Amino acid sequence: MSAARMLTGDRPTGRLHLGHYVGSIANRVRLHRHHESYFIIADLHMLTTRNSREDIERVAGNAREMVTDILAAGVDPARATFYLQSAIPEVGDLNTLLQNLVTVPRLERVPSIKEMARDAGKEEIPYGLLGYPVLQSADILCVKGQVVPVGRDNAAHVEVTREIARRFNHLYGKVFPVPEMITAETPTLVGTDGQGKMSKSRGNAIALSDDAATVRRKVRGMYTDPNRVRADVPGTVEGNPVFAYHDVFNPDRARVDELKQRYRAGRIGDVEVKEELAVALNRFLDPIRERRARIEADRGLVDRLIVDGTERTRERVRATLVEVRRAMGLTSAYNQVRRRAERSRRAAATPA
Amino acid sequence: MSAARMLTGDRPTGRLHLGHYVGSIANRVRLHRHHESYFIIADLHMLTTRNSREDIERVAGNAREMVTDILAAGVDPARATFYLQSAIPEVGDLNTLLQNLVTVPRLERVPSIKEMARDAGKEEIPYGLLGYPVLQSADILCVKGQVVPVGRDNAAHVEVTREIARRFNHLYGKVFPVPEMITAETPTLVGTDGQGKMSKSRGNAIALSDDAATVRRKVRGMYTDPNRVRADVPGTVEGNPVFAYHDVFNPDRARVDELKQRYRAGRIGDVEVKEELAVALNRFLDPIRERRARIEADRGLVDRLIVDGTERTRERVRATLVEVRRAMGLTSAYNQVRRRAERSRRAAATPA
Repeated sequence: MSAARMLTGDRPTGRLHLGHYVGSIANRVRLHRHHESYFIIADLHMLTTRNSREDIERVAGNAREMVTDILAAGVDPARATFYLQSAIPEVGDLNTLLQNLVTVPRLERVPSIKEMARDAGKEEIPYGLLGYPVLQSADILCVKGQVVPVGRDNAAHVEVTREIARRFNHLYGKVFPVPEMITAETPTLVGTDGQGKMSKSRGNAIALSDDAATVRRKVRGMYTDPNRVRADVPGTVEGNPVFAYHDVFNPDRARVDELKQRYRAGRIGDVEVKEELAVALNRFLDPIRERRARIEADRGLVDRLIVDGTERTRERVRATLVEVRRAMGLTSAYNQVRRRAERSRRAAATPA
Repeated sequence: MSAARMLTGDRPTGRLHLGHYVGSIANRVRLHRHHESYFIIADLHMLTTRNSREDIERVAGNAREMVTDILAAGVDPARATFYLQSAIPEVGDLNTLLQNLVTVPRLERVPSIKEMARDAGKEEIPYGLLGYPVLQSADILCVKGQVVPVGRDNAAHVEVTREIARRFNHLYGKVFPVPEMITAETPTLVGTDGQGKMSKSRGNAIALSDDAATVRRKVRGMYTDPNRVRADVPGTVEGNPVFAYHDVFNPDRARVDELKQRYRAGRIGDVEVKEELAVALNRFLDPIRERRARIEADRGLVDRLIVDGTERTRERVRATLVEVRRAMGLTSAYNQVRRRAERSRRAAATPA
């Protein structure tokens, strides 16, 4: 029995950080072992909010960094197909064919679209951004994805894909599996500034690729309880990002509990709590660093994976599009015209 | 000096009628002589409001009838390229790439979209229908159309194309001509029932392919002044479809004026006015019928024109897409990855 086909991926925005790891990568590392896994490098999705030449010029470098980070995080390249979305023009073809299977009000009810527009500083939503869930449907359906891991943000997108798949199958016959969602808890990691979720653009991120010294420096500069002016003042653990990180990344639960108790009682300094966090984070990151070192030592490995994955995926997508056009009746429409044209050419070539 | 490239076309909804002739075909017949002319058979546009298997099964037959009618109306096949939109998947690819260059509110301001939704009985606008002007932009820009004949309905669409072309050129360098509109007076022809514009679905149309007896029968059944119960009752010419047709299709202006005068004075019967209209219409349609007979005698001619036109257009569209992806930087993004992958493969193959 073959494993179910899973599609997952990200826009190529560069280096991944601990927030990405907690929010999605850890889950994918776990899931990819039990699935035939496609990792899309979604540069066409990037274009919905960032489409300058400069943005696009960063795609290749960002894609390489992103794939390196995913592999370093523990994804086995033998079990995953990475591909660059824009290098498969058939995705755009499918996107166009799926656009009539969902309505504008339905897409306007997808909550994350307006957020994305706001985050990108767009007063008016680009047409392509409203259609983000349609293009994502094309991504999932073009490889006939069967399962999609979803967090809070993208469950609503994949719900659109499920509707589009059902609608297509209803109108034209069963071509697409209706993809199942694997809902995972996707905790949001607060940034080092304690002011919001971790994000490269806010400058409050610890990258998976940061070295030990950088991690230590960033942890030392972390926001903690601002009322705690001295180590003997009782501190607050709740909402304190240093303890939030201890909870996630420090496997020594007993020690974390002890630190919290002493912090609340005013019997430990911030410096010490942070020092232990830096140690825990670096221990967590060390195996990732080792894998990264091996990946980077194999020059061109990531590029070869992307190229091979893209070629392999393109073959599959082409086959899907043949099936889609046949099911819709578009192939037959043109073939009718072609056959009549050929018959008449043959008749003209035959002497009377 | 080569002629400017013109794009024009219709959704393949079948036989053309006098309303189409007056509204757009006459204008195209005139214009196509001075331009390199592309006639799109816009079946992907049809899908925005009609996308059942049954609708699509009618595409081939409808396309053939439509092209036959256009040729019969006087378009010279040596001066026109006919092509089937859905047989050029690169159009969908370009459509996807253009979607981020226009906003949702901008498209919502295009007046005809809501009309089309209403006419199609759609309560909620399909996403693809809101994007009708984007797909139309892909049609025009994929062949680098320079001029587009527009009537009242589609000027607003082509204005979107002009904005998208400018936006693309601004972001990525000059690839597209900003198409000029050739605005023509596009009078609306009232139907034979006098109740609204001529339309096949209302059953008030005279087809370009109707034979002389059918035309006579339809004219005899035409709505006229309902208050005129006898030939000696003074009649109203204004808003009377019989006189509206005389004005458009009867070249004998003096005779038409005389008929109007006598009608107003109650000195001519409806039967006589209609009989003269039937004669005028059949005289107008006779050369169209002769051309149709020649076209239909050449079996497969229309099919060959569509196939050859589609292949020729596809070559051109492919070249445009190469240029588009290069200008956007998407080609370079993937090529960077490919070159590094190849270099590393060569290095691995070279003995140390």
